[in-house]
Amino acid sequence: MRLFRFPKTGNLDDLTLMEQGIPKPAERQVLVRLRAASLNYRDHAIAMGRYGMGVSPENLIPLSDGAGEVVDLGPGVTRWKTGDRVASTFFQAWPRGEAQPADFATALGGAIDGVLTEYRVFDENGLVHLPANLSFEEGATLPCAAVTVWNALFTQRPLRAGETVLTLGTGGVSMFALQLARAAGARVLITSSSDEKLERAKQLGASGTVNYKTHPEWDKEILKLTDGRGVDHVVEVGGPGTLQRSLNAVRIGGFVYLIGVLTGGDINPLPILGKNATVRGIYVGSREMFEAMNSAISVNGIQPVIDRVFSFEETKDAYRHLASGSHMGKVVIRFP
Amino acid sequence: MRLFRFPKTGNLDDLTLMEQGIPKPAERQVLVRLRAASLNYRDHAIAMGRYGMGVSPENLIPLSDGAGEVVDLGPGVTRWKTGDRVASTFFQAWPRGEAQPADFATALGGAIDGVLTEYRVFDENGLVHLPANLSFEEGATLPCAAVTVWNALFTQRPLRAGETVLTLGTGGVSMFALQLARAAGARVLITSSSDEKLERAKQLGASGTVNYKTHPEWDKEILKLTDGRGVDHVVEVGGPGTLQRSLNAVRIGGFVYLIGVLTGGDINPLPILGKNATVRGIYVGSREMFEAMNSAISVNGIQPVIDRVFSFEETKDAYRHLASGSHMGKVVIRFP
Amino acid sequence: MRLFRFPKTGNLDDLTLMEQGIPKPAERQVLVRLRAASLNYRDHAIAMGRYGMGVSPENLIPLSDGAGEVVDLGPGVTRWKTGDRVASTFFQAWPRGEAQPADFATALGGAIDGVLTEYRVFDENGLVHLPANLSFEEGATLPCAAVTVWNALFTQRPLRAGETVLTLGTGGVSMFALQLARAAGARVLITSSSDEKLERAKQLGASGTVNYKTHPEWDKEILKLTDGRGVDHVVEVGGPGTLQRSLNAVRIGGFVYLIGVLTGGDINPLPILGKNATVRGIYVGSREMFEAMNSAISVNGIQPVIDRVFSFEETKDAYRHLASGSHMGKVVIRFP
Amino acid sequence: MRLFRFPKTGNLDDLTLMEQGIPKPAERQVLVRLRAASLNYRDHAIAMGRYGMGVSPENLIPLSDGAGEVVDLGPGVTRWKTGDRVASTFFQAWPRGEAQPADFATALGGAIDGVLTEYRVFDENGLVHLPANLSFEEGATLPCAAVTVWNALFTQRPLRAGETVLTLGTGGVSMFALQLARAAGARVLITSSSDEKLERAKQLGASGTVNYKTHPEWDKEILKLTDGRGVDHVVEVGGPGTLQRSLNAVRIGGFVYLIGVLTGGDINPLPILGKNATVRGIYVGSREMFEAMNSAISVNGIQPVIDRVFSFEETKDAYRHLASGSHMGKVVIRFP
Repeated sequence: MRLFRFPKTGNLDDLTLMEQGIPKPAERQVLVRLRAASLNYRDHAIAMGRYGMGVSPENLIPLSDGAGEVVDLGPGVTRWKTGDRVASTFFQAWPRGEAQPADFATALGGAIDGVLTEYRVFDENGLVHLPANLSFEEGATLPCAAVTVWNALFTQRPLRAGETVLTLGTGGVSMFALQLARAAGARVLITSSSDEKLERAKQLGASGTVNYKTHPEWDKEILKLTDGRGVDHVVEVGGPGTLQRSLNAVRIGGFVYLIGVLTGGDINPLPILGKNATVRGIYVGSREMFEAMNSAISVNGIQPVIDRVFSFEETKDAYRHLASGSHMGKVVIRFP
Repeated sequence: MRLFRFPKTGNLDDLTLMEQGIPKPAERQVLVRLRAASLNYRDHAIAMGRYGMGVSPENLIPLSDGAGEVVDLGPGVTRWKTGDRVASTFFQAWPRGEAQPADFATALGGAIDGVLTEYRVFDENGLVHLPANLSFEEGATLPCAAVTVWNALFTQRPLRAGETVLTLGTGGVSMFALQLARAAGARVLITSSSDEKLERAKQLGASGTVNYKTHPEWDKEILKLTDGRGVDHVVEVGGPGTLQRSLNAVRIGGFVYLIGVLTGGDINPLPILGKNATVRGIYVGSREMFEAMNSAISVNGIQPVIDRVFSFEETKDAYRHLASGSHMGKVVIRFP
Repeated sequence: MRLFRFPKTGNLDDLTLMEQGIPKPAERQVLVRLRAASLNYRDHAIAMGRYGMGVSPENLIPLSDGAGEVVDLGPGVTRWKTGDRVASTFFQAWPRGEAQPADFATALGGAIDGVLTEYRVFDENGLVHLPANLSFEEGATLPCAAVTVWNALFTQRPLRAGETVLTLGTGGVSMFALQLARAAGARVLITSSSDEKLERAKQLGASGTVNYKTHPEWDKEILKLTDGRGVDHVVEVGGPGTLQRSLNAVRIGGFVYLIGVLTGGDINPLPILGKNATVRGIYVGSREMFEAMNSAISVNGIQPVIDRVFSFEETKDAYRHLASGSHMGKVVIRFP
Repeated sequence: MRLFRFPKTGNLDDLTLMEQGIPKPAERQVLVRLRAASLNYRDHAIAMGRYGMGVSPENLIPLSDGAGEVVDLGPGVTRWKTGDRVASTFFQAWPRGEAQPADFATALGGAIDGVLTEYRVFDENGLVHLPANLSFEEGATLPCAAVTVWNALFTQRPLRAGETVLTLGTGGVSMFALQLARAAGARVLITSSSDEKLERAKQLGASGTVNYKTHPEWDKEILKLTDGRGVDHVVEVGGPGTLQRSLNAVRIGGFVYLIGVLTGGDINPLPILGKNATVRGIYVGSREMFEAMNSAISVNGIQPVIDRVFSFEETKDAYRHLASGSHMGKVVIRFP
């Protein structure tokens, strides 16, 4: 079988295609033939050696998001049979409930080897069923970006139908925020630097859009779109560089989900107090969240937004495409 | 102005049309010209003298659910201006948060006079804005049935997209359960004794139906429709006569909202324990719930299901139509 | 090693002392030398063949509640070292979050063999650390009764300091309800048929007591003790025979935790609606709940109430003592 | 009657003693003879003209926290009778549930006139009963500092017995955090620059203390006191200057309540993400929270920590004493 590793990081060209024997599943493990994977900004940051979060990717197989087929079972497996269509869970050991510190040491493609490999053995608890309405390419978009959105919007203080969600930009997380929030009956506002992308976001259900290039004070536009009241929820993927405006744009008592680290810098935290706001850090989610989200995807016939599909051999191009920021939705790699 | 009163109760024919002067709004009160009202089973039970809940309807103006237009303001009113389109809140004094015992003494058309009158003075806190997309007839369907559903499904433990809701029958409460749960991305199962009504429920978004006449053990059918797992939520309008089967049909850890009192009798409560279920009694809801629901109605373009509209003069016929049980959705009275 | 089994059930005399070799821990398993166990009503019901909940105790080793010492480790164990003082979790496979149906098939001393054995192999996930301030006898009281109380009062809608809790009788569950609710700053009311037990309950922190023998309408006494308002929470161990009065005694919007099955019969569910009450069925809890509770026990120096300690050889006497209902708190068996 | 006003602000010496007639309560209002008041940092900031939060204190009667006796009733009052012992609610119009923006315009001693007056008319909804176990001086400590702590620790995600709370310094808010968290069965850690104050905090129930003068990296000390895990909750009164260390000291998935504005500056928000932490801004709370807290105070016999009581005439000295930061607990003014 073929797989990619980073013998060292700091440069995308370090990514090396290798050959290796297909592993055997041990007790309570299953062997999965991977058919597709998707990329997240985290993957690029890891490749560049810029990712914190306790990652030391010595000779790492990258990528957290994979989908494929169960092809062999180790002894004692009860959850799977061969032929099952599955996706990997970002954390291999966060089944349900709240995260425990040890769970974070099981993040695929970072703390442990990931899915950029034609075959991989998983603990039987580290997989979920693919929604029946999704292809492998679509299923591979879910483990990190979509579960993160689900954790933000549907767990501690679930979104209610009729509330307003603001999501920033048109990357993978934001597209899932748009689709899942719409499926749950919310109104969605979205920002982008591209009028064309905003137009497509409208077709996907966004009811208000702001071009942050032509309106650098986009927070004021969001307030206008909410009669001065502010939005109920912000899916904040921008990081410190946008958080201050997100705090301006949220309503009194509203919720800001801190997800992304695209930008650095410091912020003045006093608006959190003045707005009685809740700022919650989100780091993907549990297998149970993934399964609940898959049910929402099936019931509502959601099709993930895929920007472009690359072949296994074009993997480096896929990374570069993601890094360009020109995409809308997810960047996917199709395996042979 | 004209209005109806029950000088005594026990017989629908006691309902008496009267003439009376239009009242003046006092401090912080508004005068509303009512344009439509809707009926609930509670109204029929009150008319028949069979309603408990602390009601002593001496010379009562009945009905809790009204919609109309603000036509005059008392001193100090800040929430309204003339011309505003409004609906009455079931409780005149439950603004937000949890109900206090004293709130229950402000239920329209029961504890205090209701809306079956061409004009009525309301405390300025006892009204909500009508959703812009609804007519007076549609708006008049909301205060009791729809708010009850909202309180059940969207407050203490909000429904999540992808979950499954079971609702019993096709009365006003059940139709709102169907529409609001669908808007929030849930899967909805529904029962009825009429295949024709079930067919219409499917058109409204139900994904599974059971005719409880041809399948008296409808709980088993519901289990089949959920692969033996049971539903996440039951909107239980039937009362003791159906609750036992509802407990069979709910999943382990699921939720049953006890709303209706259509039937009497005792139940064996042990399945509540065996299922780890939560059974919650719901008695309409607060003004804040009403407002949150109206936002969901607007954002998702929900049109309430109206079975039939009667004229003010046909009010007794409207009561009889409701009592017949042949309706699907709400029975409405249009005022001149 | 010695252990007890029920070759068949229906009679306590069927309980048979046996000899068997000490088992070896397999992968991710640990061997525990048990030092104490405690009894619950469930154990007596199982012995009598009267327990439902999917139990078929063919040749069963009974009892769910054990405490002891880790004496050997299988390969790959990371959570334990030899010498650790541990208690068993009631469910061997409910780590955290909500229960899944499959978890219920791992209940000790029912679905699977229990702890009435000098040595037992456990999955490394089926144990918790004993609080440092507790002896083995005290620790053995926790797995079923105390965790049940914790799940009821401190999870979905946690008890708040200053609220009022009613608990029925003075068995193991009720004594933990009294102690844990007091530690959390609540006011506790309690019922019993014995003035002597009520006096001891006061010494343990109860601030109001009702003898239900001299006051068969004990619900009215509870209302008096709460100025007519009713209690916030009822730890309902009586079952159908007391639930109706518990619903009278709870406040509008209050919570009744259905735990016990001491009595049978049907109830009229309408008060659940009239009171806007929440009735929640509780079936023990997760390992995470057990650990959170142990922290509360340590921080607050709680000492479980032990009625009497029997020797391993006196096990049948311990069962009979529990069945007599004369105890207050827990009945414990000390192992050699 | 006598009262104090700030004809202008920016200097404490502007505070002016005046004489004025006793006002009459209008409809649904009550007249209260105030017997004590307490000071908060907010009051000093308002006096210095440094308080944001929408305050324009033209000729303001300052102070939000008062306690006294009902001496006269306007027409239609149902909640009070003369002789009732009461405290003011910080917001005159936040009865229960979540705050609405308009509620913030009713903050005493800021948005509207406060309680530094011998008599004051209140809306009947703007008062709570004093706990029976508290004097007027003790009762006057509650409206701002104690309710803030209650809102932080006991509402959205209530503190559970056995959890660990960190509170910063020994001001009024921190002393209530210590006492209320202990009453609820939590473990409390506390910081101060004074070993003597830390010693007194231990006597009040703190189980761990850190002198931040001798240990400027106090966050590391807190981690040591929690075996490296971090605390569950931080009552963060320091503001930006301490928030970064508070984020270091909180556990993964923990809660930081942003209350105080003692210091300014910016912070790096990324640890919120890395810790999966929730940072929630708290701005006092509702009347219902005040009432729930009073129940906790009564049931657990909590006596507020009063640093020093000044006479009405010594009011400026009281302000200066607060500004000195040398106090521990609350600074109170006793009225004649």
